[in-house]
Amino acid sequence: MSSNEVAWGRPKPERADAARNRRLLLDTARTLLDEGGTGCLTMDLLAERSGLGKGTVFRRFGSRAGIFQALLDDSERELQQQVLSGPPPLGPGAPPAERLVAYGTARIRFLARHQAVARATLDGRHVPAGRRPLSEIHLRVLLRELDPPGADVDVLAGQLAYALDGPLMLQVLGAPGPERRPPADADIARFEAGWRYLVERVCGG
Amino acid sequence: MSSNEVAWGRPKPERADAARNRRLLLDTARTLLDEGGTGCLTMDLLAERSGLGKGTVFRRFGSRAGIFQALLDDSERELQQQVLSGPPPLGPGAPPAERLVAYGTARIRFLARHQAVARATLDGRHVPAGRRPLSEIHLRVLLRELDPPGADVDVLAGQLAYALDGPLMLQVLGAPGPERRPPADADIARFEAGWRYLVERVCGG
Repeated sequence: MSSNEVAWGRPKPERADAARNRRLLLDTARTLLDEGGTGCLTMDLLAERSGLGKGTVFRRFGSRAGIFQALLDDSERELQQQVLSGPPPLGPGAPPAERLVAYGTARIRFLARHQAVARATLDGRHVPAGRRPLSEIHLRVLLRELDPPGADVDVLAGQLAYALDGPLMLQVLGAPGPERRPPADADIARFEAGWRYLVERVCGG
Repeated sequence: MSSNEVAWGRPKPERADAARNRRLLLDTARTLLDEGGTGCLTMDLLAERSGLGKGTVFRRFGSRAGIFQALLDDSERELQQQVLSGPPPLGPGAPPAERLVAYGTARIRFLARHQAVARATLDGRHVPAGRRPLSEIHLRVLLRELDPPGADVDVLAGQLAYALDGPLMLQVLGAPGPERRPPADADIARFEAGWRYLVERVCGG
């Protein structure tokens, strides 16, 4: 999977010809994007224009969405470098709370800048996972009632809805491979305690 | 889309025959699940066993993942009822912060209980969207350094990683229809301010 190809700070070694093909495919994909936007970038056209076999393209990316994920990963290398060795507060050297704010700001701007490619990684799926919209509506109602000082309640409702579903969905759904076990009671209790902690910090006096 | 069929507290009216078909399809889908698990539930088999046309099944659910989303929605009606009119603190009558904790606990247990169906709504996609795993690794490093008292840092890193990407991904990627505009500068600034708020609440003294 392309999402495993780049680990944070420790890129996986790649054979020279594989690295060359990867670079060629990504460069060709960017040319196709510049020419016609995300709509014109298909596996077939990418194989044809890069002069590689369809099998190579398929093995490399798995699906059309996989091409866009690889492009997004590639664009994110610059952000990674800034985080690992750039100037503070995005890079090392600032207090962790400042670095958290700086990283989030950079990540938000990165996603906004690459929104066409980011959207194409979803391959037509609108809402990532689970019943988030219903959670978000309910959380917004409760947060409006609570009215935490200084909060943008609509944004906060979205954040908490994702914070609620995301980690469990990843634990339950995210592990690759055929053998996925239901979450253990101890794991469920951890998620419950984590949620309580978050609500108390966000809403507590 | 199935996710629009059930709005929080105000179910959309459905024609009698459509409602009957929907019930029949969901009941048949549950029978197939009981017989052979998620793996044996396909659009073709569902059409055959329910005695309805493939076109009807396709129009109703759109994809195999859509069947599982509809099953999850259907199971969630009970949780919705408890939230809307059940006893407090899940239902009305308790302070909002208590209701937030109660809702999260109920939602976590719901997802854990329905994990096979929840997983199948992703249709083989492992990680919902974006580069969350990299964000999560970086956030965990910073949170470990910060060591907020009482926090389960691993769980918190996952929550914040989803809270960071999710709302923007939904804004950028989530709107259905062909006309999707890039996020405006004002929206980006809102997400940035929302992230700063969350970090300050979670990490502040």
